[in-house]
Amino acid sequence: MTGAPDFSRLTFPQGFRAAAMAAGIKQSGNPDLSCVVSDHGCAWAFAGTRSTTAAACVTRNRELYAGGAPLRALMVNAGVANAATGQKGARDNLDMADALASVLAVGEQEVITASTGIIGHLLPMDRVLSGAEHLPEELGDAALPFAAAIMTTDTRPKLAQAVLSNGARIVGTAKGSGMIHPDMATMFAFAFTDAAVEQTALREAFPGIVARTFNAVTVDGDTSTNDMAAVLANGAAGETDLTEFLTALESVMRDLARQIAADGEGASRLLTVRVTGAASEAEALAAARTCCVSPLLKSAVHGADPNWGRVIMAVGRSGAQVDVEKLKVSVQGVPVFAAGPLNYDAAAVSQSMKTDEVVFDVDLGVGTAQGEAWGCDLSAEYVSINADYTT
Amino acid sequence: MTGAPDFSRLTFPQGFRAAAMAAGIKQSGNPDLSCVVSDHGCAWAFAGTRSTTAAACVTRNRELYAGGAPLRALMVNAGVANAATGQKGARDNLDMADALASVLAVGEQEVITASTGIIGHLLPMDRVLSGAEHLPEELGDAALPFAAAIMTTDTRPKLAQAVLSNGARIVGTAKGSGMIHPDMATMFAFAFTDAAVEQTALREAFPGIVARTFNAVTVDGDTSTNDMAAVLANGAAGETDLTEFLTALESVMRDLARQIAADGEGASRLLTVRVTGAASEAEALAAARTCCVSPLLKSAVHGADPNWGRVIMAVGRSGAQVDVEKLKVSVQGVPVFAAGPLNYDAAAVSQSMKTDEVVFDVDLGVGTAQGEAWGCDLSAEYVSINADYTT
Repeated sequence: MTGAPDFSRLTFPQGFRAAAMAAGIKQSGNPDLSCVVSDHGCAWAFAGTRSTTAAACVTRNRELYAGGAPLRALMVNAGVANAATGQKGARDNLDMADALASVLAVGEQEVITASTGIIGHLLPMDRVLSGAEHLPEELGDAALPFAAAIMTTDTRPKLAQAVLSNGARIVGTAKGSGMIHPDMATMFAFAFTDAAVEQTALREAFPGIVARTFNAVTVDGDTSTNDMAAVLANGAAGETDLTEFLTALESVMRDLARQIAADGEGASRLLTVRVTGAASEAEALAAARTCCVSPLLKSAVHGADPNWGRVIMAVGRSGAQVDVEKLKVSVQGVPVFAAGPLNYDAAAVSQSMKTDEVVFDVDLGVGTAQGEAWGCDLSAEYVSINADYTT
Repeated sequence: MTGAPDFSRLTFPQGFRAAAMAAGIKQSGNPDLSCVVSDHGCAWAFAGTRSTTAAACVTRNRELYAGGAPLRALMVNAGVANAATGQKGARDNLDMADALASVLAVGEQEVITASTGIIGHLLPMDRVLSGAEHLPEELGDAALPFAAAIMTTDTRPKLAQAVLSNGARIVGTAKGSGMIHPDMATMFAFAFTDAAVEQTALREAFPGIVARTFNAVTVDGDTSTNDMAAVLANGAAGETDLTEFLTALESVMRDLARQIAADGEGASRLLTVRVTGAASEAEALAAARTCCVSPLLKSAVHGADPNWGRVIMAVGRSGAQVDVEKLKVSVQGVPVFAAGPLNYDAAAVSQSMKTDEVVFDVDLGVGTAQGEAWGCDLSAEYVSINADYTT
């Protein structure tokens, strides 16, 4: 889709280094084990999947999060999700963190983990542990090798950066192929910053930022067992204005969220739905997400069909309050519904939808809150990709 | 799919008559205006969509339901859903009921209505009103003409019958094409019986029956603006055992629910997910429905792929409690996961999935509650049907 900026020379913020290697977890032989290490203890915030079959890594990270102690490292493996693996999976996850902690000479509780890949299979612990031993030998400044090693079905690495006025930086990376993933468990978004941010303030703001960015990507409506988002702040660049920092963090997370949606399996278009006039931000986001996840609307976007009836249906089932007498819908900036069908040039609007991004604007006519969500079109190609997997 | 029983000679229960005609609402010229009339006042129960953009018919029926007075008739139009049409739509809906009530010489409040078709367009009231005037001339015993006149994108009428031990009957009909509907607003399920049933008992039992049948069909996860289910009991066949009646009503509604799922656009297989070992019936149904709506699992069923990882993911995101150490999954009766992957003949299981109905059994390992839901496979054909609609 749209040409991504060149991130081949992007480095992590001061005081962070990363490593990546092929440990033999992926059958492809591609890099699959990686870590990001900080020279200083990091203030951090975390959000994990709401799935009741959450993976071992999510469960352990959540416990460490409740503890609140500073972090020194994040360790990631791709290829095996270590989800639905019970007590053995929990022990393996702890052993994986412990192995890296030992080589780094930090505490096991200073290392969070993230696993992504096939659900229901155990990690090949011999490869993970021997990999962990050699991983620190690869530590360096470059961001791209880490971003590449966390991928599963992604077609490209996802990176984003913001530079603050005091010179501090935020570097974010994410993985997740915006549409259906064959068993792949699924989305990660990580941000690293050398700005000094007070942990309490960071944790207070993070859920809202995640709701408006990472959680506003609707993949296929399926919440994975391993979804997580985290931000690590090591303070190496000194004090930063909090409002400036949070705004920049949200823009990095938003950029990554859009990259995830745009990289959907079989997808040819990014679908953006902007909702205004809602009773609350939560209702605006629910309405926008329900539009983006609707197979009905996604099919219409694939066919470049300005099908506003499907928008009204999706908004209605989202549970958001709507005033039908004030409801308005636009497609690519062209009003198509305002308390009733409008006359518009359907052929011209359809033509304008044959591009990289299709935007629907919906005014619910109730209040002043707004929200935005991202998805992608639904193509016949994606069905065949996912129907023909494994057997 | 499976050969349906021959309903060409099916009649409505005693004291009910139906009429159907082509009033010119559908562009196709097919029958589109219909009614069922009872000689006696009916005890009735009703369930309507939870959509916040509910159609005028749903809103008015709900008000009549709260009133609790007996019903004499149900009037249905297909072609225009009269949803998202504001106050004008509400007036049109009332006028439609009033027109039939006048010809039948009953009260307007004794007639409920149901509209299905395109969202956001007004009813052609001249055709509806002149149709209503002539509709009673067509009244007769046959069930099939009514079942056909309420269809939109359905490929076949849907009917089911149960006969009780005292000779009373329950005849049910439904509409809704199990998968994505281009703007069509969407599912109806109606049951008519000459059994005498006390209205309070009927209304107490109906929500549970709807939850286990009509609401366990997951179409595409999209709740329409016009969905409704209703049962009318006129008592013409006299007193009936309540438990026998409710069991029979549930079997009729379940039969109709499966017919809706099987008639999905582009669908080649019925998908049935049976969940046991749940903490509550609500959680069992949520887990089963989430599996049936997952594009991921639906694609796997299309490809005859016994992909249990997708079942675990869907169950996890449903919010149902799961004990991963006791979780079990079977496909077509073959155990494939029990607290970990099992060895099984993948080629043989895949071969067994190439049939009219694919059944997944899932034991959550938590409690004793159970539930079942139905969907259909996701095919490339359905994407092209829905991508190429309208423009």
